[in-house]
Amino acid sequence: MILEAALLHIRTGESVAFEAAFLQAQAILSSMPGYLSHELQRCLERDGHFLLLVRWDNVAAHEEGFRKSSQYQDWKKLLHHFYDPFPTVLHYELVQGNSIGI
Amino acid sequence: MILEAALLHIRTGESVAFEAAFLQAQAILSSMPGYLSHELQRCLERDGHFLLLVRWDNVAAHEEGFRKSSQYQDWKKLLHHFYDPFPTVLHYELVQGNSIGI
Repeated sequence: MILEAALLHIRTGESVAFEAAFLQAQAILSSMPGYLSHELQRCLERDGHFLLLVRWDNVAAHEEGFRKSSQYQDWKKLLHHFYDPFPTVLHYELVQGNSIGI
Repeated sequence: MILEAALLHIRTGESVAFEAAFLQAQAILSSMPGYLSHELQRCLERDGHFLLLVRWDNVAAHEEGFRKSSQYQDWKKLLHHFYDPFPTVLHYELVQGNSIGI
């Protein structure tokens, strides 16, 4: 299992619309092969700042399976126009921990 | 429940020592009131880059309870010398998601 993490900066005044669009977009994400779970987290200290965490079976499930799918075009259309700047997306593997999830 | 997230940049060549120190330090973290779970995640794309995720009952459990505890001095001593620069720590609340945790 790997963790995809992206810090999202949403255009000023568009956070509510972004959250509504994400509610729709997450159905795309969770239908993909290799998808395990996700969380959209809203920052308490910084307006318009979110953390997206997605757990996948492996990096290929995200980078090949999801990003090269036809569904990714719908995801892009729903969400990418909210980002400024476009986020850096990185992948992580667990070193230590005992998450209980949510 | 809130999520604390910190992107950690470890001094060049010190990642192995950092991971060993974290193994010791996490016992401090998980003994604190209001602590729920944590994950230390190692970045696959960037050497020396980690993501620390800690779930707490609330922000005060982290900022008041943990940071003002005597145990925090031990945590600092074990870990802070590895960071360059010192990390920005932010807190998040869940918007959407269905994490299965780890």
